[in-house]
Amino acid sequence: MRKEHDMADKFAYGLTLTDIIEARSRIKNVVRKTPLEKSIPLSNEYGGDFWFKLENLQITGSFKLRGAANKILSLSQEELDAGIVCASAGNHAQAVSYMAKYVGTHADIVVPKGTPESKIAGIERFGSKAIVYGDTYEEAQAHADYLCKSNGSTFVHAYLDPATIAGQGTAGLEALLEHPDIDTILAPAGGGGLMIGQGIAAKGINRDIKVIGVQTYCSPPWYYSFRDRKLNNDVEFRPTIAEGLGGLIEEPNITESFKCVDEIILVDEDTVRKAMAWMIDRHHMIIEGSSAVVIAAIMENSEHFRGRSVLSIISGSNVDTSRVKEILGAQGGRELFIDY
Amino acid sequence: MRKEHDMADKFAYGLTLTDIIEARSRIKNVVRKTPLEKSIPLSNEYGGDFWFKLENLQITGSFKLRGAANKILSLSQEELDAGIVCASAGNHAQAVSYMAKYVGTHADIVVPKGTPESKIAGIERFGSKAIVYGDTYEEAQAHADYLCKSNGSTFVHAYLDPATIAGQGTAGLEALLEHPDIDTILAPAGGGGLMIGQGIAAKGINRDIKVIGVQTYCSPPWYYSFRDRKLNNDVEFRPTIAEGLGGLIEEPNITESFKCVDEIILVDEDTVRKAMAWMIDRHHMIIEGSSAVVIAAIMENSEHFRGRSVLSIISGSNVDTSRVKEILGAQGGRELFIDY
Repeated sequence: MRKEHDMADKFAYGLTLTDIIEARSRIKNVVRKTPLEKSIPLSNEYGGDFWFKLENLQITGSFKLRGAANKILSLSQEELDAGIVCASAGNHAQAVSYMAKYVGTHADIVVPKGTPESKIAGIERFGSKAIVYGDTYEEAQAHADYLCKSNGSTFVHAYLDPATIAGQGTAGLEALLEHPDIDTILAPAGGGGLMIGQGIAAKGINRDIKVIGVQTYCSPPWYYSFRDRKLNNDVEFRPTIAEGLGGLIEEPNITESFKCVDEIILVDEDTVRKAMAWMIDRHHMIIEGSSAVVIAAIMENSEHFRGRSVLSIISGSNVDTSRVKEILGAQGGRELFIDY
Repeated sequence: MRKEHDMADKFAYGLTLTDIIEARSRIKNVVRKTPLEKSIPLSNEYGGDFWFKLENLQITGSFKLRGAANKILSLSQEELDAGIVCASAGNHAQAVSYMAKYVGTHADIVVPKGTPESKIAGIERFGSKAIVYGDTYEEAQAHADYLCKSNGSTFVHAYLDPATIAGQGTAGLEALLEHPDIDTILAPAGGGGLMIGQGIAAKGINRDIKVIGVQTYCSPPWYYSFRDRKLNNDVEFRPTIAEGLGGLIEEPNITESFKCVDEIILVDEDTVRKAMAWMIDRHHMIIEGSSAVVIAAIMENSEHFRGRSVLSIISGSNVDTSRVKEILGAQGGRELFIDY
């Protein structure tokens, strides 16, 4: 990665478009070039030019494969031979599991006690074993650190790593190469890797492309950190259907985001649920709450996007069937579903 | 199309692999090369090597775009200028609507009175107008014929046309080029276009590839026609969740199918519903009943496929949300869903 010699970059990664282009070249035989699709229903119903980058159709079901692939394919053979480690039970864990199998190395994927069997099955489906350790994620993380130290293996972080972030940026790069008229990008904001990756790709191509992160009111630290122009985790956290976007945020992603992200939008939980049901009804696709926030942002702010060409990164599909049933049941009225 | 001078081909199309290759070359810039994906869950749970060609992710939501694209892109500019016509309210109509817009011509898409608004919206979403005429599909079809005669426009049939069938064959061709180890192909059997297209592609590459059509017990004319080695529509028809596969079948598709399809499998309606719910749970994808029959065939006959490398053509995603809700509600037990 190129470090720019600028004080403002002191705590940040100094990533540039070139890093995203290199990442794309590195991962292009592993990762699916997902469809870029104009959403005719969203464009018609909300009056705009709305495009989806469908990472819900990515191998392993989410964009996380891009970042994990770029990180793992950047390692030397010696590093690969020593194995890789992560502490996650979600989309990142599935991506690391898949990549370990792909490169033929061993992955220790540490999850805390109480992790549902289905999540463990999701990890092991792609070929790696899950290690159940500790009562909390902090304890699982500490065990992962211990494994790295004692085995000389490499920890693959889900979002606090320039290689991972550069990988995530390839989603937006692919979209902009295919449809250069895009002038606005909406990305879910969780750890920040996806959002920052889009920001670096977009701003490297054209500073005028607007990059917007989206969270829900139930987990708003990005919003308040942007308002204050400094890290602010002193916000109220509540349970959210966008589980993947919940929780504290960290440096140096904050500093990096200030350089390439224009704005954070907060959306209502109810709109996120509506957006999930809408996606099933109009596009016959199941997306997770963490993905639906970007559609919710358009539903709540359509006038904000009038006259613009807007790309939404639909980040993943991993949602429980029980949740799908619940959402369809709650949203079952005429006001949302086309009446058959 | 190359007509082989053979009495056995008298009533058939004489299509060969070359026609499918030409079709693929013709449509490759219009039609999405859909993902070929090994279903790890199906392979693990039913003990086999099971692959999906995901035409549910095709533009317009089904494989029908392949056939319509090949037919319409085969027309001369003069023919295109005179317009195109079809009589359908389903996936084929959406495909014709899309293609008319793509080539910049006018399409008359005739649907009978009583066609739900949502189906008309599905057609018009892609840019063409629907013409509501007659009380039945027969009357709509007669009006379509009248329009062709009076305007000199071209009728685009959903399955009784060699150009359409060659287009549908490109799905299997793409899969076999990507994964040549496939030795069995399962295709839904409705009008027969999709199934025959796969048969011509597969047998042209390797006579030993087994091609199997699938219907439900509620609409079994392909099964009995294969048993008798001649057209047999004298079977009991009942309402089926695989709506797109219901109804009478016709020559010359029967004759053509005997040359390139090995077997027809019938499946239970309940297994089709289970397969739809399974696909939502395991792959987070919504597929229509007409697609789920191929997964149902594996669920009911897994021992039949032991040791084989089986491709299932997942034909489309166009299913009403009310049906999705109903299926998830009925299947909600532990026996099917992974418990979260």
